[in-house]
Amino acid sequence: MAAKKLIKNGIIVTASDQYEADILIDGETISSIGLNLSSADAEVIDAKGCYIFPGAIDPHTHLDMPFGGTVTKDDFESGTMAAAFGGTTSIIDFCLTEKGRPLKDAIKTWHEKSKDKAVIDYSFHLMIGEMNETVMKELPQVIEKEGITSFKVFMAYKNVFQADDATLFHTLKAAKDLGALVMVHAENGDVIDYLTKEALENGNTDPIYHALTRPPEVEGEATGRAAQLTSLADSQLYVVHVSCAEAVEKIAEARNKGVEIWGETCPQYLALDKSYLEKPNFEGAKYVWSPPLRDKWHQEVLWNALKSGQLQTLGSDQCSFDFEGQKTLGKGDFTKIPNGGPMIEDRVSILFSEGVKKGRISINQFVDIVSTRVAKLFGMFPKKGTISVGADADIVIFDPNHERVISATTHHMAVDYNAFEGMKITGEPVSVLVRGDFVVRDKQFVGKAGSGQYIKRNRYGAASQLKQNETLSI
Amino acid sequence: MAAKKLIKNGIIVTASDQYEADILIDGETISSIGLNLSSADAEVIDAKGCYIFPGAIDPHTHLDMPFGGTVTKDDFESGTMAAAFGGTTSIIDFCLTEKGRPLKDAIKTWHEKSKDKAVIDYSFHLMIGEMNETVMKELPQVIEKEGITSFKVFMAYKNVFQADDATLFHTLKAAKDLGALVMVHAENGDVIDYLTKEALENGNTDPIYHALTRPPEVEGEATGRAAQLTSLADSQLYVVHVSCAEAVEKIAEARNKGVEIWGETCPQYLALDKSYLEKPNFEGAKYVWSPPLRDKWHQEVLWNALKSGQLQTLGSDQCSFDFEGQKTLGKGDFTKIPNGGPMIEDRVSILFSEGVKKGRISINQFVDIVSTRVAKLFGMFPKKGTISVGADADIVIFDPNHERVISATTHHMAVDYNAFEGMKITGEPVSVLVRGDFVVRDKQFVGKAGSGQYIKRNRYGAASQLKQNETLSI
Amino acid sequence: MAAKKLIKNGIIVTASDQYEADILIDGETISSIGLNLSSADAEVIDAKGCYIFPGAIDPHTHLDMPFGGTVTKDDFESGTMAAAFGGTTSIIDFCLTEKGRPLKDAIKTWHEKSKDKAVIDYSFHLMIGEMNETVMKELPQVIEKEGITSFKVFMAYKNVFQADDATLFHTLKAAKDLGALVMVHAENGDVIDYLTKEALENGNTDPIYHALTRPPEVEGEATGRAAQLTSLADSQLYVVHVSCAEAVEKIAEARNKGVEIWGETCPQYLALDKSYLEKPNFEGAKYVWSPPLRDKWHQEVLWNALKSGQLQTLGSDQCSFDFEGQKTLGKGDFTKIPNGGPMIEDRVSILFSEGVKKGRISINQFVDIVSTRVAKLFGMFPKKGTISVGADADIVIFDPNHERVISATTHHMAVDYNAFEGMKITGEPVSVLVRGDFVVRDKQFVGKAGSGQYIKRNRYGAASQLKQNETLSI
Amino acid sequence: MAAKKLIKNGIIVTASDQYEADILIDGETISSIGLNLSSADAEVIDAKGCYIFPGAIDPHTHLDMPFGGTVTKDDFESGTMAAAFGGTTSIIDFCLTEKGRPLKDAIKTWHEKSKDKAVIDYSFHLMIGEMNETVMKELPQVIEKEGITSFKVFMAYKNVFQADDATLFHTLKAAKDLGALVMVHAENGDVIDYLTKEALENGNTDPIYHALTRPPEVEGEATGRAAQLTSLADSQLYVVHVSCAEAVEKIAEARNKGVEIWGETCPQYLALDKSYLEKPNFEGAKYVWSPPLRDKWHQEVLWNALKSGQLQTLGSDQCSFDFEGQKTLGKGDFTKIPNGGPMIEDRVSILFSEGVKKGRISINQFVDIVSTRVAKLFGMFPKKGTISVGADADIVIFDPNHERVISATTHHMAVDYNAFEGMKITGEPVSVLVRGDFVVRDKQFVGKAGSGQYIKRNRYGAASQLKQNETLSI
Repeated sequence: MAAKKLIKNGIIVTASDQYEADILIDGETISSIGLNLSSADAEVIDAKGCYIFPGAIDPHTHLDMPFGGTVTKDDFESGTMAAAFGGTTSIIDFCLTEKGRPLKDAIKTWHEKSKDKAVIDYSFHLMIGEMNETVMKELPQVIEKEGITSFKVFMAYKNVFQADDATLFHTLKAAKDLGALVMVHAENGDVIDYLTKEALENGNTDPIYHALTRPPEVEGEATGRAAQLTSLADSQLYVVHVSCAEAVEKIAEARNKGVEIWGETCPQYLALDKSYLEKPNFEGAKYVWSPPLRDKWHQEVLWNALKSGQLQTLGSDQCSFDFEGQKTLGKGDFTKIPNGGPMIEDRVSILFSEGVKKGRISINQFVDIVSTRVAKLFGMFPKKGTISVGADADIVIFDPNHERVISATTHHMAVDYNAFEGMKITGEPVSVLVRGDFVVRDKQFVGKAGSGQYIKRNRYGAASQLKQNETLSI
Repeated sequence: MAAKKLIKNGIIVTASDQYEADILIDGETISSIGLNLSSADAEVIDAKGCYIFPGAIDPHTHLDMPFGGTVTKDDFESGTMAAAFGGTTSIIDFCLTEKGRPLKDAIKTWHEKSKDKAVIDYSFHLMIGEMNETVMKELPQVIEKEGITSFKVFMAYKNVFQADDATLFHTLKAAKDLGALVMVHAENGDVIDYLTKEALENGNTDPIYHALTRPPEVEGEATGRAAQLTSLADSQLYVVHVSCAEAVEKIAEARNKGVEIWGETCPQYLALDKSYLEKPNFEGAKYVWSPPLRDKWHQEVLWNALKSGQLQTLGSDQCSFDFEGQKTLGKGDFTKIPNGGPMIEDRVSILFSEGVKKGRISINQFVDIVSTRVAKLFGMFPKKGTISVGADADIVIFDPNHERVISATTHHMAVDYNAFEGMKITGEPVSVLVRGDFVVRDKQFVGKAGSGQYIKRNRYGAASQLKQNETLSI
Repeated sequence: MAAKKLIKNGIIVTASDQYEADILIDGETISSIGLNLSSADAEVIDAKGCYIFPGAIDPHTHLDMPFGGTVTKDDFESGTMAAAFGGTTSIIDFCLTEKGRPLKDAIKTWHEKSKDKAVIDYSFHLMIGEMNETVMKELPQVIEKEGITSFKVFMAYKNVFQADDATLFHTLKAAKDLGALVMVHAENGDVIDYLTKEALENGNTDPIYHALTRPPEVEGEATGRAAQLTSLADSQLYVVHVSCAEAVEKIAEARNKGVEIWGETCPQYLALDKSYLEKPNFEGAKYVWSPPLRDKWHQEVLWNALKSGQLQTLGSDQCSFDFEGQKTLGKGDFTKIPNGGPMIEDRVSILFSEGVKKGRISINQFVDIVSTRVAKLFGMFPKKGTISVGADADIVIFDPNHERVISATTHHMAVDYNAFEGMKITGEPVSVLVRGDFVVRDKQFVGKAGSGQYIKRNRYGAASQLKQNETLSI
Repeated sequence: MAAKKLIKNGIIVTASDQYEADILIDGETISSIGLNLSSADAEVIDAKGCYIFPGAIDPHTHLDMPFGGTVTKDDFESGTMAAAFGGTTSIIDFCLTEKGRPLKDAIKTWHEKSKDKAVIDYSFHLMIGEMNETVMKELPQVIEKEGITSFKVFMAYKNVFQADDATLFHTLKAAKDLGALVMVHAENGDVIDYLTKEALENGNTDPIYHALTRPPEVEGEATGRAAQLTSLADSQLYVVHVSCAEAVEKIAEARNKGVEIWGETCPQYLALDKSYLEKPNFEGAKYVWSPPLRDKWHQEVLWNALKSGQLQTLGSDQCSFDFEGQKTLGKGDFTKIPNGGPMIEDRVSILFSEGVKKGRISINQFVDIVSTRVAKLFGMFPKKGTISVGADADIVIFDPNHERVISATTHHMAVDYNAFEGMKITGEPVSVLVRGDFVVRDKQFVGKAGSGQYIKRNRYGAASQLKQNETLSI
């Protein structure tokens, strides 16, 4: 159990502020922030020369997830440990469902995957694959009992996860009524299916064809469609893993018309590009995920969208498979390469190094993108997502000047390669606390499996907006 | 001189946070924020049931300003007192210059107008009417010595304030080099001049012709032009008093392309519309300012732009003239009606009541719009614009449920009418502190003329972004 | 059999020209055009005071078509007779297919419906409901043997005609290879299906709910999607019955990017509006078709799109049902109202009267829209669609100043009401010739059933563009 | 004086038609078109294997024009002779005016330059440099007496030709009232002036800096501004020499909103690019004109705009200066290079070869772009711009398969270089007739100086649109 701690001399940065002060932690929460604080019974941690960020929240992970006959390499233990090293103190993982099977069974499965393993806090999004009376009856329970207030609909993966527009529209309507946020994987699965078959028929089996059969236009189209349906349903939408200009444009257009739509990008789209899929010796397979990597010029569009506020969050889309034995399943047929990559550990550092250090976004935007906005959108704020009095003491002590090189030889994920191998990064978490307890201290893991708690989340909009007749409260 | 004060039980709201805590003020600044704070030597103020906002900053005022042969009714004393009642603790007033006259003379004049009068803190923007070697030589001094880091260029008021595109472009280039923010009044003055003469020739002399001769298209065109010039100059722009969809569209378009452009709207454009200019008995003249009021549907566009982040701030464009004796100068010729209205007092309350209470924007956005973003854009952050440890104790204790009706009979401006007369408002400042001292306490004025300090401002971008090689600092 | 005819003194108007000259017809075609022509053996027709237009072509009719358990009132006899009175000398009707049934069977059925009945020339578009190996094998035959070079895909009518995106995309690819033009009914059928069920569940059964459950956004979305798929397939698209601003915008956007996309609107969208569906006594049912009528302001957008070239053609979407006995099937349930209206007769006159006479489009554009462009897009040019030497003598002698009032009491369609009842029209065909023979003469029907010929059409693009290595030919 | 001529066996192509027929010319006009025409007293010309196009019209020439202390090399004799070789039978030259000097004096000057020299027909546009009472009084005369119905306003060339927005707006208003078409040179002259001075100050004096100081954005901005002013004035606009995507976008946007705006591009923008300005030995100066050449990717945008109808015409912007002695005036200072190039001769061939032969536009569009649309927009139709009975016999017999290489050694212009030197062209005029007389026959010049006639033009809109109450007429 966390005792009192006093973090001194750091520079506290939130989504809007930046100032030098001390932080007093009492148990799991922050009790005061001030100049020259002292406390007789608190352990003192000196953070001189460091930033103090709120613990980052990863809104998009797939841990211990079955895919195409195999299972992701990282489970809730290795995955959350790696996350912690990267400054992430909460994740929201995707709970997959099956048609015809009760939602609560799927949720139970996900609880079982996570409960004795997670070293940081966690929550679940729920995949919606069909909408019918049975599902409609279960949803209120899902929200009230489980605190799951975000539903994911896939517009791609034909004959696997893909839902039709009727299901998406119905989900949007239900979410509006119930107070949930609908998330979409926006790619036109029908077109991808056609192009994929065409490629294979033409003998085009290399990893690069994964990208060539999912061009940016299929993402742009689906994003625009989802935005339009959201507008019609007067609901709210969160577009996961936005990878290209075409999708950014559709999101911006909808937002400008007043549609309540949010966009997430991922570090891989900001830092890597399509040419990686052409690496020799089948190494291109390491970079196979969906949407695929794009031509390099899209990166600048994504950065600008983060800066101008057209995109708001960064997810890792962590979904790791070993190169040997897993990615290699797709040799001779790119459609058999398990989709996904290992991103949970470096998400925060890459945004800091490439974004803040290179002047593309402000340091406040950085905090908003990796933490605060996520907490607000997904009903975790202000307990999570900020450094303020009363909030959970989820805290990252961050050395902004430390330089390192990303490598699979040093990373903490269970997977046998790193997609950012060789990338130079400036800025690294030194110590990480979850609810007042160190999980990482001076770059050493000091947490334990099972210490992470499940987060029941509030309804969409509960924290971010004072409704008309609301009485004064927080 | 401010002594220690302890504000207890309020709900602190910043541009990103909302939480219940106590605030300890030591002298002019905030020294700590915490749960159940106590201090032996501090005066305790109970803020139960109230929000604690950072003092609002009005980026757009014209006090004691000559215009068309008359002078605004409110000077720095009555104007800042009224501002304080409305929760505003700092203003930035426009210092007008004249071609051929040294800039420093104009600044000196503005210092003289304000120094023994202001009851809250204040700073100046500098109008640029011409660009030549003399001006270029003076500008570095203006920035370094005076801390004036924002320059205003008029694209309208032909033969009076209007600058040509060469001047605007030159100013943008200079601002880029010097670290200043260029502000534009974006209306095409040439077209207005033509339409105005045409109207008078046709005997159209009523106040409504003020609006009809400055249609939204002239604002949209000039806004797009200014954005384009900013892009070409790779500089930064702030568009004042955005009133219509046409201008919002141009700003959004430029932002989406990565241009560094910001937009300000005003309470009058959010709450009033063009039909007010048709009030009988020449009362339409009360609503004559530029840009003019628009058709009602533009209001929703402006609200949405504030929500989606395409507009970022709210200025009052305070520029008050009595109806009797001043506005009436334009009887029989609308071009002789002094342009402007009295908005400094109700700017903040209107945004809270119409925006937050009606669910159009979040309470964090509200704080950002009236205070934090202004401080950041104009080089006053983090001293001004937030509630954080170390910041100036510019604080508004705000009762969100108080209901009142705006009226000239109760307002504190010196002018003989109120543009929002009869409007019902929910939410009102109870007490207001500037650098730790009460200026308004329990709705009574307790400040004094001359207590307001001049604010030397930092260069544009200094606070909002950590540059690549910047060492760790705040 | 047509003998020689000499039409004198008329003003010939084509898609680009307008001039006074005589026309000599020899048999079925035009043999010369000149000043003061004479011919010993030709019958002379005086067209003084009249325009001479090329016979109009209706690209969009449904004659003798089964729908929802009933059949359209007009068959190929009454339908083409009414068309002739309106100045239409060719139609292209939609041949419906069924999944699993050979395409050639469907085509055979349509030949049987038409061959002894049509009084003007006719051709067929072919509906594509599925794409598989069987269909792919039949398509080359359809084009070469039948001369059917346009395929229609429905994005709406879920569980009836609706095809998924895979089918649409496959059809676009096939059309590209084969030289055909893909046509889409662009509405999102999934969303309509949801909204329709929702309306019925809420007891909303009146005709107006037909419009309210198919809002413009569902048309805009589907239009944008089809355009995007066309771009990806590098194919060509024709959007039928464009009814609203949202769809026009998507078409314009795609055209501006170089996508080969064409748009057709209909007279009902230009002249009627949504309020018609609210007529009392169930009369709103007379105006039930898909897409539905829109708010009045959309009309101006459509007119402007015709003028600026963003829309290129006008179809009637003729699909007539009696009010009594057919439309009334939907009393108490708007979804049971047969969709469609009687437009074949007045299509041309309405465009002339509302378009040319009111200065919205030029008289050359009028000819292009109702005739020439249709002939070019659908492989009938220059045999059809113009007045030039060598072309079929499909000719309309048109009195531009005749005034009349549209009414079911005088129209020539078999149906019991007219959607334009009471509308004042200026301009009317006096006489109409098909391949040199009068079908209507001095406003009397003089044709005969079965005299119309089936038109085998050329491949898409054959007439409109000279390919790089093409030898000189017409 | 022209006698009867019979052109047999050619393929006649107009803006909408393409068919094989014979043409009988009687005197200056076409008297009939038919199959197997014969005439006892007509000279027979065999056009087998050739297209018969209407004589092309060049809407944009500067012959015998003073510029920067020198005068264009080609005058009305050499210029129109070269034009004739290229298939151009009419030009509209720009009549320059001077502030304070009567318009009629300038027109008189232009008549003197042209009257005994032109070998083809010609007309004048009138430059408007100022708008005041004097000018307003003269304009009706200019239209009625001179038949000059198009006014040119320069938004660039600061302190030389540049007019302010007031002048442009006033001109637009006047044109609307008088029935004229306003033309603009759309570049922001203020910004160019700034950038030019900056370049020279930095020692950047090479020809490439001509392009670098006039980036596409200055053209896009000015085009958008002119479009907006046109919309406000409810007038009509023709944008000359559109060179870039930014300008195309603004034109398309305005057209989509219903603004009556037209765009002209030039062969140099379709076939050359910015890299030409970097040619060594000062040869870049040969390609200095305004707007400047752009990056190569703009070409595809321009082609697509011609195809989709967003641009409608092609002007040569002929303005020729010798390289030696004229262009070389700018050695060491690019601002002293006379602006312009020799394009009058190859305008038509380049569009045919690059456009029609390469499948970018249809052959009908080609005719519309180089001839018909120009005639319609500038009040010369149907006398000029088409092949129809009654029209002037301005005819080009064109061999579509002839291959040649453009070169100064073979061209007919007086200037010492050709901007398209070395370009391979397919398609060439064999013979060219103006009002029934050969000017070029079998590629030999057979015309004579002074045979060209001045064309008094009709008001804007007179030919293209049948107004509401117009009686039947052509």
